[in-house]
Amino acid sequence: MSETLLSSRNLAFELYEVLDAEALTQRERFAEHSRETFDAAISTARNIAEKYFAPHNRKNDENEPRYENGAAVLIPEVKPAVDAFLEAGFLNAARDFDAGGMQLPTLLSQACFAHFQSANAATASYPFLTMGAANLIENFGTEEQKQRFLQPMIEGRFFGTMALTEPHAGSSLSDIRTRAEPAADGSYRLRGNKIFISGGDHPLSENIVHLVLAKLPDAPAGVKGISLFIVPKFLVNDDGSLGERNDVILAGLFHKMGWRGTTSTALNFGDNGNCVGYLVGKPHQGLSCMFQMMNEARIGVGMGAVMLGYAGYLYSLEYARERPQGRLPDSKSPDGAPVSIIQHADVKRMLLTQKAYVEGSFDLGLYAARLFDDTQTGESEDVRKHAHELLDLLTPIVKSWPSEFCLKANEMAIQILGGHGYTREYPVEQYYRDNRLNPIHEGTHGIQSLDLLGRKLAQNGGAGLKQLIRLIADTCERAQAHELLTALRQPLEQLVARLQAVTLGLLTDLSQGKVNATLANSALYMKAFGHAVIGWRWLEQAIRAQEGLGKGNEADADFYKGKLQAARYFLTWEVPGCHHELAILERRDDACLSMRSEWF
Amino acid sequence: MSETLLSSRNLAFELYEVLDAEALTQRERFAEHSRETFDAAISTARNIAEKYFAPHNRKNDENEPRYENGAAVLIPEVKPAVDAFLEAGFLNAARDFDAGGMQLPTLLSQACFAHFQSANAATASYPFLTMGAANLIENFGTEEQKQRFLQPMIEGRFFGTMALTEPHAGSSLSDIRTRAEPAADGSYRLRGNKIFISGGDHPLSENIVHLVLAKLPDAPAGVKGISLFIVPKFLVNDDGSLGERNDVILAGLFHKMGWRGTTSTALNFGDNGNCVGYLVGKPHQGLSCMFQMMNEARIGVGMGAVMLGYAGYLYSLEYARERPQGRLPDSKSPDGAPVSIIQHADVKRMLLTQKAYVEGSFDLGLYAARLFDDTQTGESEDVRKHAHELLDLLTPIVKSWPSEFCLKANEMAIQILGGHGYTREYPVEQYYRDNRLNPIHEGTHGIQSLDLLGRKLAQNGGAGLKQLIRLIADTCERAQAHELLTALRQPLEQLVARLQAVTLGLLTDLSQGKVNATLANSALYMKAFGHAVIGWRWLEQAIRAQEGLGKGNEADADFYKGKLQAARYFLTWEVPGCHHELAILERRDDACLSMRSEWF
Repeated sequence: MSETLLSSRNLAFELYEVLDAEALTQRERFAEHSRETFDAAISTARNIAEKYFAPHNRKNDENEPRYENGAAVLIPEVKPAVDAFLEAGFLNAARDFDAGGMQLPTLLSQACFAHFQSANAATASYPFLTMGAANLIENFGTEEQKQRFLQPMIEGRFFGTMALTEPHAGSSLSDIRTRAEPAADGSYRLRGNKIFISGGDHPLSENIVHLVLAKLPDAPAGVKGISLFIVPKFLVNDDGSLGERNDVILAGLFHKMGWRGTTSTALNFGDNGNCVGYLVGKPHQGLSCMFQMMNEARIGVGMGAVMLGYAGYLYSLEYARERPQGRLPDSKSPDGAPVSIIQHADVKRMLLTQKAYVEGSFDLGLYAARLFDDTQTGESEDVRKHAHELLDLLTPIVKSWPSEFCLKANEMAIQILGGHGYTREYPVEQYYRDNRLNPIHEGTHGIQSLDLLGRKLAQNGGAGLKQLIRLIADTCERAQAHELLTALRQPLEQLVARLQAVTLGLLTDLSQGKVNATLANSALYMKAFGHAVIGWRWLEQAIRAQEGLGKGNEADADFYKGKLQAARYFLTWEVPGCHHELAILERRDDACLSMRSEWF
Repeated sequence: MSETLLSSRNLAFELYEVLDAEALTQRERFAEHSRETFDAAISTARNIAEKYFAPHNRKNDENEPRYENGAAVLIPEVKPAVDAFLEAGFLNAARDFDAGGMQLPTLLSQACFAHFQSANAATASYPFLTMGAANLIENFGTEEQKQRFLQPMIEGRFFGTMALTEPHAGSSLSDIRTRAEPAADGSYRLRGNKIFISGGDHPLSENIVHLVLAKLPDAPAGVKGISLFIVPKFLVNDDGSLGERNDVILAGLFHKMGWRGTTSTALNFGDNGNCVGYLVGKPHQGLSCMFQMMNEARIGVGMGAVMLGYAGYLYSLEYARERPQGRLPDSKSPDGAPVSIIQHADVKRMLLTQKAYVEGSFDLGLYAARLFDDTQTGESEDVRKHAHELLDLLTPIVKSWPSEFCLKANEMAIQILGGHGYTREYPVEQYYRDNRLNPIHEGTHGIQSLDLLGRKLAQNGGAGLKQLIRLIADTCERAQAHELLTALRQPLEQLVARLQAVTLGLLTDLSQGKVNATLANSALYMKAFGHAVIGWRWLEQAIRAQEGLGKGNEADADFYKGKLQAARYFLTWEVPGCHHELAILERRDDACLSMRSEWF
């Protein structure tokens, strides 16, 4: 039977041939792990995803949550799926053994979670949001908050959300209006309205812990005046039992283009003046706490985009192999049998493009997870610091690149299925609709590009960028050992050389205060930067594939040849195209910036 | 109040400043028309589209046709809209006065129809399909068939469909299995199954006339053995009254990603052995008849894609002007008021890109309609012949370019609205879903690119291509009169020069029998070719805008400046990017072609 969630051969390639997951078992924290325990966890994830998540993916879409008597009602299949996920321990895959976790490297927990994202993005969101919220409380909460809220989240009894957006303030969080007044007992009373809160209501857990951004009375204006609060749906008594319902009202549900199985809610805090919240971290520093969660969330969003792309790629690949239609251009005789459409050049192009996008960003997402492990358990402080710097730089790419290009992959999957792909009788149109959210939430594409060009490049004196350039150079150097890779290496070297020059020029302009003009074409910069990063990852994969081929394992030869072909596609068809964007950046073209509202 | 369907200033620019619609009134056929009658027709179309079509566009989407007791049930708003359309005479806008038509040039009937496509693509489809089917019977039917079927279609009592696709045969029509056996009375008995038949059942008309492709018993294999039949839902008696229900069964409805208001049906012909059909045209020549209809349909599909893009562009433009959010990068002080998002450079980029795509292809679609007029009423046989050759060549671009790029425009409209754009509370996500059909139906994108490179270029000894090159050169020459247009003209000239060389090389290879390899990258060729065509149309628009500016009409200055900026965007940001595709074509890169199924 063909695989539908991801290629397990490709996952093994990533873990054991590209990213050296086994080396992690040398670290004290993972000493009790081995390739066997890793594979067992993955196998469990795949089984549960196939058995409990995939079967109701379409039903989730067709029966979106309903608002009934002030609560959100889901289809009955969601809870058993989430319960199976919890029971198998995936909510705490990366958490300490002592805390009831599997103590897996993030690389592995991410690899496990990828199966759920592929099988059912909507249902997977509930535990995903909970994991993020739990990590935030773990990092910034008081001991009492951990006891009262984190512990039941770890046990899977409480779920979590992050509540940032308001009707008038999404990208611009500095303008939020939700207020928090101190109460006599040390807690706070919140008042405000939040929208687009995913998982803001559902019947999957005893309680929901909202992490809410709000402003204290003495808050300075702007982002430096935002504080973070725990606001539970039900208050929690000292003994851990549930108390009264808090003053948090589900005002309504949003009806989305896709990702319909996850409730997107409008929440009113304090309509009755009695919404209790607890400050997390220091006053006015909520945004930096939230950003830690958002950085993790952005990697998760990126992987989610990858996995929707992956599901569509595998489905359209299988379809193309099995669907007979037409004949090749040079053998139009109608007497011959039709060929399967995978034989048509343009279908091959759409499949190879999908493979390049999906497997390229799958590699990057796992690479980022591996880096996250290095930030936590790297052998020295230097290693941890460097990993942190590089991960910070790469985060906008990890989030935005798959959101853009795996969405394109989904569009191609629809095209391969033709009229069938456009019907809801086949899954690919849903993958597209689900994936369309990813360039929007957790920071839009435009915000990511400003983050990259305006903040991340120059952060820490450009330490992350220097590392990246060095790592790419290192990969290019290793590629020189394989003559067959020359044609793949060169376009990457050319792009990176020019990208470096453009980057220097832009950073110089920024430092001279030409802010608006320099940031104007940040989306183009991000495209070229992202392609350089993915091109680098593909060259790395190509080296490993060439090495694998060299070992003469017959059974794997097709797999490695496919890797080399996809690397060739990406490095020779996609990477050189970015010189176009760089040329526009070089001449500081203001065609868009100088457009005026009244001219439209 | 802002316009929602299209910019009437832009339509007037196209008709009277770019395409010289008034010159058509010099032709005998249009002698009774004038700018006043043209504008009156357009004004009527806009009013009906706004009043009857736009209001139920979302309802169409939310309440797709239901299958009940063997019939398709639509929401009640569709029929009054279609009736208003019929009553105003738009079904026969281009038909003779004598036949009850308005005798408008196709340029004008297309401009009128564009309003309906923008307001409600799904409801507009029913008359659209009927017009195509009626034209086909008019051109190829017998007098008796015209009396019996065409006349009631013109009167709006019968509607039409085109029934080509079968479950196993879509792009490859040579493999259809529907059979037609001659009966004693000169008619035929059909047996077969068709799918994806738009408008295949509905309660909008007394009768439905299906134009069905089927094979006669003595049919040669392949496309040269396909015949065309009229198969009415109800038989028609000699006196024109409706007879028995024909043996055409609505087997089911497809549930689509978008365009939901138009029934997409599975039809069974002859399940009871008694499906009566009438041969149209000569035996085995059905496909060439159908292609005439499909060529018109392809222009209509292209314009449909444009208009969905247009609706999204106008909506996101209005939203961007009214939505305050954030501050410009150089004035981040939270004390200042937020700016409207149209001030943000990346939003401007997405709006200018949409404008360039939408108005560029709107111009091309109307230009094609103008060419169609020349094929019919051009002053000399030479003019008519040349128009025909050029239109043939351009048809794949007119169909495919907006299907690809106005879909991208819709994607950007969603992005501009952010989280709101992703909800079904706003219209832009529906435009995207509706538009996603256009690269699939009436010949997929891949089919269009094969048609262009493999057929149209060399047709008539390359006469169409030579004309196009000459016309582009002429536009470039006229652009030289305006020094400000130099930077816009040059990239077009450079692209066209290289495109010509690439074209020559590819055609040479084709003539030497290297068919598969040469056609393999036809999608890339079509992109470069399409951008050259749209770039040409933008340079033409820029010249007219420059002339308009020169006249010093203050009130119009903003409009013309917007045109020049969009032309600048397209010609300097988009056109040069195509050298990337041409480089791949030049080196006959087989990265995709040489990929093998087993390597994926």
